[in-house]
Amino acid sequence: MKCTRCRAPAQVRLPRIKAGFCPDCFKLYVERQIKRAVKQFDLIGPEDRLLVAVSGGKDSLALWDLLVKLGVRADGLYIDLGITGYSATSREKAQNFADQRGLSLRVVDLPARGEAVPGLAPFGSRSFCSTCGIVKRHYFNRAAAEGGYSALATGHNLDDEAGRLLGNLLRWQDGYLAKQAPSLPAEAPGLMRRIKPLIRLDEYEMAAYCFLSGIDYIIEECPHARGATSLKYKQVLNHIESLMPGTKWNFYAEFQSRRRRFTPGPGVGPDEAGTGAWRQCSSCGQPSWLEVCSFCRLKQKAALGTPSQATPSPAS
Amino acid sequence: MKCTRCRAPAQVRLPRIKAGFCPDCFKLYVERQIKRAVKQFDLIGPEDRLLVAVSGGKDSLALWDLLVKLGVRADGLYIDLGITGYSATSREKAQNFADQRGLSLRVVDLPARGEAVPGLAPFGSRSFCSTCGIVKRHYFNRAAAEGGYSALATGHNLDDEAGRLLGNLLRWQDGYLAKQAPSLPAEAPGLMRRIKPLIRLDEYEMAAYCFLSGIDYIIEECPHARGATSLKYKQVLNHIESLMPGTKWNFYAEFQSRRRRFTPGPGVGPDEAGTGAWRQCSSCGQPSWLEVCSFCRLKQKAALGTPSQATPSPAS
Repeated sequence: MKCTRCRAPAQVRLPRIKAGFCPDCFKLYVERQIKRAVKQFDLIGPEDRLLVAVSGGKDSLALWDLLVKLGVRADGLYIDLGITGYSATSREKAQNFADQRGLSLRVVDLPARGEAVPGLAPFGSRSFCSTCGIVKRHYFNRAAAEGGYSALATGHNLDDEAGRLLGNLLRWQDGYLAKQAPSLPAEAPGLMRRIKPLIRLDEYEMAAYCFLSGIDYIIEECPHARGATSLKYKQVLNHIESLMPGTKWNFYAEFQSRRRRFTPGPGVGPDEAGTGAWRQCSSCGQPSWLEVCSFCRLKQKAALGTPSQATPSPAS
Repeated sequence: MKCTRCRAPAQVRLPRIKAGFCPDCFKLYVERQIKRAVKQFDLIGPEDRLLVAVSGGKDSLALWDLLVKLGVRADGLYIDLGITGYSATSREKAQNFADQRGLSLRVVDLPARGEAVPGLAPFGSRSFCSTCGIVKRHYFNRAAAEGGYSALATGHNLDDEAGRLLGNLLRWQDGYLAKQAPSLPAEAPGLMRRIKPLIRLDEYEMAAYCFLSGIDYIIEECPHARGATSLKYKQVLNHIESLMPGTKWNFYAEFQSRRRRFTPGPGVGPDEAGTGAWRQCSSCGQPSWLEVCSFCRLKQKAALGTPSQATPSPAS
């Protein structure tokens, strides 16, 4: 197969867009997909200064790389979750990436704060991943707000978002559907705008981009994510995509034009507490739907020392 | 495992409702699901006289059996599609079923009318199954209308409908979504109301019901359906159901309460011709969205003898 753009030998085949690219044209394709996403969903303006949530994995490092290449002011934020056999390596990858490029990486060291996720998870009311999400969202928002950034950028790719869309539709979770957008506005004072510039690119494309750009990332998934339902939805969509290339993007993009048909109901919000208004957490001051935010409630439970009955991890 | 109802040894396990039944209680469960569907979706009234579309397969024969058991006036309609290695056996199963129970089966013999589907399919604009659907819908409606029935009942089960829902959602086909209901009203003069009383029962349950009731049905699928996309959606949902029992019904039932959010657009209707009004086909007099209905257009093309470029079958 020849490169769709320059006719050199193609190295990356993309059945979903009926194209193939040589390494240079592929990288150009990826950059253009970011630009198109930015334009299509109005993600980034000239005044923006972004904080990129960096895990050390392919998506977030590629995102940071691409944003900088495109001239966007973007610093990184790494949260050390304190997960044995995962966090040390992922932190190293994130730090090396930043150091090699002279980029600024902020680090939140949860173990040093006595907030390592494996220590907090038994006190969460749901799964390990769900508790981890509460902790990450807290520090993502807090670091972005305190650092004076205009938005938080995350490395969610098309596979992540299409898989989540499928899961939300199978359960008809109207509230989650209403909020499943490439750009989530700052709904409350102190709540950061969140954007997903990789939305037009899939997992394979991000891995290929990292490989061809020499980005060294942590390949292993978090050990706690093994067997997670979200991965099942991705697998199912990959199967359908292999039968009908292009389905995944179409599914996601056409949903976006129908998103307003879904309205948030009870049980949707950072604290999943209802349709109440945003307020400030009385403990940490971050935006919350309840008197005390879910992160502070988690810490309070951990301080009391009574583990809940939640499944510690989807793998167990 | 013991029967959830009578504590005898259970022979049928139903993880999706966290129950198991002995043969007798299982049959009772199936009957009750029909009754619940009838009530939930207002499918059948005391004045109704139904025509059941019977293929010789498990679903349609079980449906006919159950309707008669529940005291509903229901005759059968078998359409001999003229498919080698399939139609002869399926016709025999349908006829034997009717004869053994003294029920009335109407038969439309397409080969005798020079309308065998394999002969018409090369002139259809889409797949074999799509052409077959056009022919069947034509005779289903015509036979029901001419026979003075009040509605047509089909054996679509939960797997069929949930799989179709998934396919329609992946493509966001608003028009099809709007019409995907267990009861479709008679929208035009001469257009029959169509009902799907098996909607609360899945494929496994229907097979078990036939086995335990001694209903002899054709086990083989139509050879032209092999590899059909609709089967892929069912497989995908079965996989998800095995991970999260109960998902399929929830997915379908919750959709029904949101169905009105979807509105038919261009390209949806018996002729997929647009949002126009119903009229009478100038050739056969059946309800149509165009001057000539899709069935008569198909026959006209076949008479002219110019095959179209459509894929003859999803398996090919």
